Amino acid sequence: MEGLIMNYPLTTTTILEYGNSVYHHKKIITYLPDGTRQEYRFGDLYKRCKKLANALTLKLGITKGDMVGTFAWNHAPHVELYYGISGVGAICHPINIRLTSDQTEYIINNSEDRVIFVDATLVPLLEKIAPLLETVECYVLINAPKDFKTSLLITIHYEDLLEEQSEHFEWPTLNENDASGMCYTSGTTGLPKGVLYSHRSTYLHASNIISPNAGNYSNLDTILLIVPQFHVMAWGFPYLCLLSGSNMVLPSSNLQPDVLIKILQEEQVTKANGVPTIWLGVYDAMKKNPPKEKLALEEYIVGGSALPKSLIEGFEKDFGIKGVQAWGMTETSPLGTVSRLQSLHTHLSDNEKLNIRAKQGTAFPGVELRIMTDEGTLAPADGKTMGELQIKGAWVINSYFKTNNQDGFTQDGWFKTGDVSTIDKDGYMEIKDRTKDLIKSGGEWISSVALESALMAHPKIKEAAVIAIADEKWIEKPLASIVLVNEKDTISDSELIEFLSRDFVKYQIPRDYVYINEVPKTSVGKLDKKEIRRLFAEGKLS
Amino acid sequence: MEGLIMNYPLTTTTILEYGNSVYHHKKIITYLPDGTRQEYRFGDLYKRCKKLANALTLKLGITKGDMVGTFAWNHAPHVELYYGISGVGAICHPINIRLTSDQTEYIINNSEDRVIFVDATLVPLLEKIAPLLETVECYVLINAPKDFKTSLLITIHYEDLLEEQSEHFEWPTLNENDASGMCYTSGTTGLPKGVLYSHRSTYLHASNIISPNAGNYSNLDTILLIVPQFHVMAWGFPYLCLLSGSNMVLPSSNLQPDVLIKILQEEQVTKANGVPTIWLGVYDAMKKNPPKEKLALEEYIVGGSALPKSLIEGFEKDFGIKGVQAWGMTETSPLGTVSRLQSLHTHLSDNEKLNIRAKQGTAFPGVELRIMTDEGTLAPADGKTMGELQIKGAWVINSYFKTNNQDGFTQDGWFKTGDVSTIDKDGYMEIKDRTKDLIKSGGEWISSVALESALMAHPKIKEAAVIAIADEKWIEKPLASIVLVNEKDTISDSELIEFLSRDFVKYQIPRDYVYINEVPKTSVGKLDKKEIRRLFAEGKLS
Repeated sequence: MEGLIMNYPLTTTTILEYGNSVYHHKKIITYLPDGTRQEYRFGDLYKRCKKLANALTLKLGITKGDMVGTFAWNHAPHVELYYGISGVGAICHPINIRLTSDQTEYIINNSEDRVIFVDATLVPLLEKIAPLLETVECYVLINAPKDFKTSLLITIHYEDLLEEQSEHFEWPTLNENDASGMCYTSGTTGLPKGVLYSHRSTYLHASNIISPNAGNYSNLDTILLIVPQFHVMAWGFPYLCLLSGSNMVLPSSNLQPDVLIKILQEEQVTKANGVPTIWLGVYDAMKKNPPKEKLALEEYIVGGSALPKSLIEGFEKDFGIKGVQAWGMTETSPLGTVSRLQSLHTHLSDNEKLNIRAKQGTAFPGVELRIMTDEGTLAPADGKTMGELQIKGAWVINSYFKTNNQDGFTQDGWFKTGDVSTIDKDGYMEIKDRTKDLIKSGGEWISSVALESALMAHPKIKEAAVIAIADEKWIEKPLASIVLVNEKDTISDSELIEFLSRDFVKYQIPRDYVYINEVPKTSVGKLDKKEIRRLFAEGKLS
Repeated sequence: MEGLIMNYPLTTTTILEYGNSVYHHKKIITYLPDGTRQEYRFGDLYKRCKKLANALTLKLGITKGDMVGTFAWNHAPHVELYYGISGVGAICHPINIRLTSDQTEYIINNSEDRVIFVDATLVPLLEKIAPLLETVECYVLINAPKDFKTSLLITIHYEDLLEEQSEHFEWPTLNENDASGMCYTSGTTGLPKGVLYSHRSTYLHASNIISPNAGNYSNLDTILLIVPQFHVMAWGFPYLCLLSGSNMVLPSSNLQPDVLIKILQEEQVTKANGVPTIWLGVYDAMKKNPPKEKLALEEYIVGGSALPKSLIEGFEKDFGIKGVQAWGMTETSPLGTVSRLQSLHTHLSDNEKLNIRAKQGTAFPGVELRIMTDEGTLAPADGKTMGELQIKGAWVINSYFKTNNQDGFTQDGWFKTGDVSTIDKDGYMEIKDRTKDLIKSGGEWISSVALESALMAHPKIKEAAVIAIADEKWIEKPLASIVLVNEKDTISDSELIEFLSRDFVKYQIPRDYVYINEVPKTSVGKLDKKEIRRLFAEGKLS
């Protein structure tokens, strides 16, 4: 039977070509770390991606399947890297700049990055570990002054790299199932795990976020991309903006509330993303110093942590700006659900509506959710029965990089999220608890297990259990409950902070310590975090 | 390198499962030919599709790759057939009910339909040709009264077929590149050609129409599906409504303006589709008898023919309802472009805006357009240089059913549309003329070549050339220019209409005849339609 559909692979290059063809006039605006504003068009992005592709292949010898790291804030060159690297068939690997030196070293060696593109302002973080990096052949410096000094051995300036290249490049034909990008989970207990995304998953993830039930992005929008590009391919936004023809505004390290507000105003931003902590800060700053004119901002989409109801309410009541809750994980590209009201909610009270909007929401087309109870049965969609949230779909991984370990997956092919959730009769998923032992503070994961091990290495400490407690600014923060070897000993908080700072970066270190006589244990002798949380909630830990 | 994305085929079953899982509470409302209103939910659709799947496989012996025809208006069972047939791995083949008996016979024999699902009201059309159908084993009667009489030999009532089946059915795992549906082009010169759609193309086409730059459909919408389901899988709407969670309203044969207006009012329809002729009728009826309350209808999307500027203007000014122009072909699933204003148009005059909205518009993500001049060079995007519109993409065919003929495709893999077009600097495509010799009247194609052959079979006619001329109601209609064998002869219009009615259905037959001394020819001796059109435009044909 002759006659069917053209082979048309869904790749990041398909996205780039579309953006250039239909929306070459749309803008990419960058605020550099020093506050300088740069602007160019999607058409310029396209040409520079082709120059970059030439540089990668001709100058740096990058070939299909090679891993290329980025260590950078959100800015136009970082977007060029997203498209340029995967366009030549290599894998774009944004590295989280907020990890410990040990974690960063591990990730770069594990991923086998051959080249790292690094912001000049972030070079000091890599200088510390460069001698330990086994596969990196070269560092490309982004936004570095001409006379930039560094101990990194082989370096080249990004603009010099591009300058000598042609704007003509024939994109190779790629298989849409090949890898286009990689991110590491930073939240799991144990070592970070690599997660590979395919061209197809990247395309489908981005194109589904555009739809009105999800992000609702169009060529009338100007979007502020606050989520750092080193987080889960920054939720697909550097891709989807080209598909939806939305102007992109990239703030690099300008994430202070007052600066963000200024950018929102000056660029007439209509939509934005970010973790709740960012929006709490923006809200507080706007309350203190209300903008003279109503912002063009219609809504902000939040992921990474639960959006507090008070924030949804405050922003909407005080400034007419809508908060939209989304949910996802590194393993799910990340976006899996979004919470928006439907016509069936029209008759609910404001408070009931708020309760729905604060849920994680309904699944996107392309992913499926289910709740598996502890008894191994499917939970009914009643909004009450809790169990582990499991997910499958067109942008969910089926294994981790370089490992055959299938612990995170069910035998019938679903990914086990480790979140305890419910799904209600209308399909709205709500996360109730976490089966994995993690804390998410200001959008970044902290491993309680790693903190516990480190604390127990202190000579005066016998046992330690770290739990997440609520925090107004960071949503969650770690609290360490400690059992001393000698009950009569004392340790100051500052001593412990100093002690932990050898292995942890600042945001990961608990500021809150309580001393207890014994750590509650489960029947099989594991730390009983649920019990500790209960004690804390009842004021019995302090 | 372990670690990548789950295999998650994009199939019509994926769509059905999603619709049931997230939007089981959404409605499908049918107005039957006799005016009866029926309503059920996506959850009911899902169960009935599973019953149908059981019936198809267990009762009718349908297996993977089998062709199953439908001959029906828009209604819930027809939607069930879309999902049920392709869900079991067979191919859903909606047959245009408006063709001649000869064409219908050819199409059914060519496609090798094993079963045809037919509306009771349409049975007479099939009875005429049933003895000539070589592959049809059985007819399933939809909405037929219990005592329905027909000369069709083996028949079963649709509801009886479903009634005895279980609601449990394990969907087979399908390859997304397998065929899910088929439509025939009815507009080409020569025989109708079969066009196969794959599960993947059907999914991607539907999911891209949802986006705000295209159709902009969400779970807040109620959509009236006017485009008949026997036309190009009715533009993807029976699929996309499940992805977007939009209520569906299906009018069957209730397409008279007054009835449509009543349905729009009663169902609080927010969006609708249709050919311009339908909307011209609705507009005229609303002008004559303005609705007391403003309709909930926000916009109607139009394809099949160019949306007249006067209609865009009138509907918007008089009733605040927006007309949106889209473009596509059977070979392109069909939708390829849509025309909406962007922020760059904000400063234009109303008339300039109207000119842009009347263009065919910009390409969807997933398809690419280009204009090839007569000299074989790519036309610049200047809005002026004309050439043949060519298209490629994820839902464009690469060949016709049962033929290796590649005449319609370029060597580098683009489909040649046969339309003469321009593309402007902002990516807006505009169709200027047609290289293929066709007339589109009220949304249906008419082959001028077929009319010419038929006319020339008349003993008194020496030569005939049929062109499209503008018509207020039908957008286009055929005009036949005739050279008589004997100049002194005369033929009445009614004689010719009678003569043609043996081979053509009513809407295909010209009402306008002019007599000329000779038909203009091109240098190679072909009918020079351009010249005939010019003569007509200048009033020299009458």
